[in-house]
Amino acid sequence: MIEKEQVEREAGDGHGDDARELARLQQRMASLDTPGVVDLLGRMSRDDRAVAFRLLPKDRAVEVFEDLDPALQGELISGLRADTTSELFRELDPDDRAPLLDELPAGVASRLLSGLSRTERDYTTALLGYPADSAGRRMSPEVAYVRTGTTAADALHRLRMIGDHVETIYTVPVLGPGRCVEGVVSLRRLMVSDPDTPVEDLMSEATTVRATDDRERAAQTVRDGGYVAVPVVDAENRLLGIFTVDDAMRVLEAEDDEDSARVGGAEPLRRPYLSVPIVRLVRARIVWLLVLIVAATLTVGVQSYFEAELDQVVALALFIPLLIGTGGNAGSQAATTVVRAMAVGDVRPKDLARVVGREITTGFLLGGALGIVGVLPAMAVAGRDVGLVLALTVVCVCTLATTVGAAIPMIAKRIGIDPAIVSAPFISTFVDTTGLILYFSIAKVVLGI
Amino acid sequence: MIEKEQVEREAGDGHGDDARELARLQQRMASLDTPGVVDLLGRMSRDDRAVAFRLLPKDRAVEVFEDLDPALQGELISGLRADTTSELFRELDPDDRAPLLDELPAGVASRLLSGLSRTERDYTTALLGYPADSAGRRMSPEVAYVRTGTTAADALHRLRMIGDHVETIYTVPVLGPGRCVEGVVSLRRLMVSDPDTPVEDLMSEATTVRATDDRERAAQTVRDGGYVAVPVVDAENRLLGIFTVDDAMRVLEAEDDEDSARVGGAEPLRRPYLSVPIVRLVRARIVWLLVLIVAATLTVGVQSYFEAELDQVVALALFIPLLIGTGGNAGSQAATTVVRAMAVGDVRPKDLARVVGREITTGFLLGGALGIVGVLPAMAVAGRDVGLVLALTVVCVCTLATTVGAAIPMIAKRIGIDPAIVSAPFISTFVDTTGLILYFSIAKVVLGI
Repeated sequence: MIEKEQVEREAGDGHGDDARELARLQQRMASLDTPGVVDLLGRMSRDDRAVAFRLLPKDRAVEVFEDLDPALQGELISGLRADTTSELFRELDPDDRAPLLDELPAGVASRLLSGLSRTERDYTTALLGYPADSAGRRMSPEVAYVRTGTTAADALHRLRMIGDHVETIYTVPVLGPGRCVEGVVSLRRLMVSDPDTPVEDLMSEATTVRATDDRERAAQTVRDGGYVAVPVVDAENRLLGIFTVDDAMRVLEAEDDEDSARVGGAEPLRRPYLSVPIVRLVRARIVWLLVLIVAATLTVGVQSYFEAELDQVVALALFIPLLIGTGGNAGSQAATTVVRAMAVGDVRPKDLARVVGREITTGFLLGGALGIVGVLPAMAVAGRDVGLVLALTVVCVCTLATTVGAAIPMIAKRIGIDPAIVSAPFISTFVDTTGLILYFSIAKVVLGI
Repeated sequence: MIEKEQVEREAGDGHGDDARELARLQQRMASLDTPGVVDLLGRMSRDDRAVAFRLLPKDRAVEVFEDLDPALQGELISGLRADTTSELFRELDPDDRAPLLDELPAGVASRLLSGLSRTERDYTTALLGYPADSAGRRMSPEVAYVRTGTTAADALHRLRMIGDHVETIYTVPVLGPGRCVEGVVSLRRLMVSDPDTPVEDLMSEATTVRATDDRERAAQTVRDGGYVAVPVVDAENRLLGIFTVDDAMRVLEAEDDEDSARVGGAEPLRRPYLSVPIVRLVRARIVWLLVLIVAATLTVGVQSYFEAELDQVVALALFIPLLIGTGGNAGSQAATTVVRAMAVGDVRPKDLARVVGREITTGFLLGGALGIVGVLPAMAVAGRDVGLVLALTVVCVCTLATTVGAAIPMIAKRIGIDPAIVSAPFISTFVDTTGLILYFSIAKVVLGI
């Protein structure tokens, strides 16, 4: 058993020690049966009890909580809410924290969160075991629900009573035994129906989101279904809270901000543009510019390598900016299209082969069109041979650019990087280098230099 | 007076004739007083009457409609719904149509639209005088409302009766005399309040949108206020319909799709990526690529013009792709930031001077940082003087790129072009040309060539 003083001292000592200490306590409890754990918790101080309880795996936590004396249940909740408890877990490395914290049981989580302000809730979520950016972090725990067996009239009466204290009364989860969500019924349906109808006959199948789901996915569910709100549940489909269309709109706006900034090669500002200090504008952009300028030094290397060819046919140099600009633009188009298609859920990483197939064809057709239309004038300026080199290179560069532009964001997503990060500027820079290599290689073959 | 046959014949003859004929009828009615117009309409066929009525200015139309025999009012609505009427106006040039069609009076518009399916409604909106992409085109005319003086209990009863036939009963406009919106009351408020309270005591100030407002603006109003729905009104604040959070989410998604595509230099696909034929992918991108490649030929011109300098110091050529790539990236960052800030309403076109001021400073700082960090290695490769030219050019190009990148979308918006169109690729291409001019000019001065 850890004493409160010990917890505090160790918190001062370093987070690694905390983590080891907590893991030891977790192991010790794992060796006890449920009555043994209940007994152990009963002899602890309020804050220690909260810490120990939080280390139980979910199934065990449900049993222990139900066996606890109701007075101790209340004290446990207040212990979980205590700043010291929350802080202890917050200060652990996320890597240390993840194996310690299983999902909280639904009954405990909703009691823990309800009545807290949004800020207090944010502060408490370190305890919940829901990942950052998950629906569980964003949901409202103040949720109106009715139980199966209730009539429409009773349900309306209940909503009238609690209406001021819950997030919304327009979408109402219907719960069966053990807080399990069996369906949802809209307030509109309750109002227009015969008052004696049981809610089971009025409810429709519930579209729910898991508390551990990504908040963007939850928001898309709300948007695509046109819901006012969807219930948030745990792994056993027990009600934890509600995720409303307001939440969804705010999440989608934030995600769009992020995508938009990253597509442009900057970090999101997360604040209105005019209120951001200039230093922060610079910070949001400088890293990518540095990365890209370092990557661009490859183009210097490529040109040095082909210096002999350049010296022989100086006209080749004239078209370099045009060529790499076109490649960059074709790559940007493909990248933004695919990033957006993934953001709205039209394309998933497993569609990679299909997308690449489409983009190879698209790039080839675009390159062909540009080659014919744009390059004839070039022949007039620089002669037939250089014109031919240019036409061939445009076709190759466009095909390469659209393919790479579409594939890289998809591969990024698959390996867990935000696809928007590796978008337009990244791809332009990549295409600059490969485009130059193609250009000089084609020139060598066609011009025989 | 135009006979139906005449209308049809003229529709066959050409749209210009229709427009002239309608303008003549409009002038003729303008010379009559209200009873004169009522009399004239009374003697027309159903379809002619609808056409003639639609040509009245709004104030006059209100008076005429109120003076019409109720049976004729009904026939007028069915005449306005008739395909022949709608088609006549649809086939006119928008330029011809605009001066002919004033906003329809609220009482007529809501009767005209209610009961129509979304498709029928889209088809009828040619008649309404609301611009394309306006809130009026997107609103639902089936709107639940209550009148001032109603009690909460009566309002609930009414909502229970009409609940199945309206778009939403969760946000209810409260109407005073003449359909004017005096406030809105939420169903939740009605439910939790004392049943005898008059709705005036429960309603809050209404945030409304005009039917002629841009739909994106309406959607932002809903999102930013966290509303379930907002009433849509005409110029005199009379209720026309309701714009719900569903509508808002759909509008915002479509606008984001459009912005995202255009920022990448393509036209929006308006369909899921994988379902779009490749020919359409090509079409969505080819126009911009052609425009940009033609613009990029300027870079060829610039390099030809400075050919003498390039021949003297061949090392200059090595850094061209790096330099214009960096300029393009800095410009893209600024452009996407500003396009997004305008899309979410953080920046308005009147902020141009402030934004430009911020971006000049930002670009200068970015250029300075890149100049110091990225260019020292260049000195090692190409010598002190070329390194100095490069450092100075990077500072100038970054400052120019961020300034132009931020300013052009704002100027575009002010003159009515979608700012996303003139974004990243457009600005990269612009910066390519100006960047080259700066580079060679600085080289001439520093290297004395």
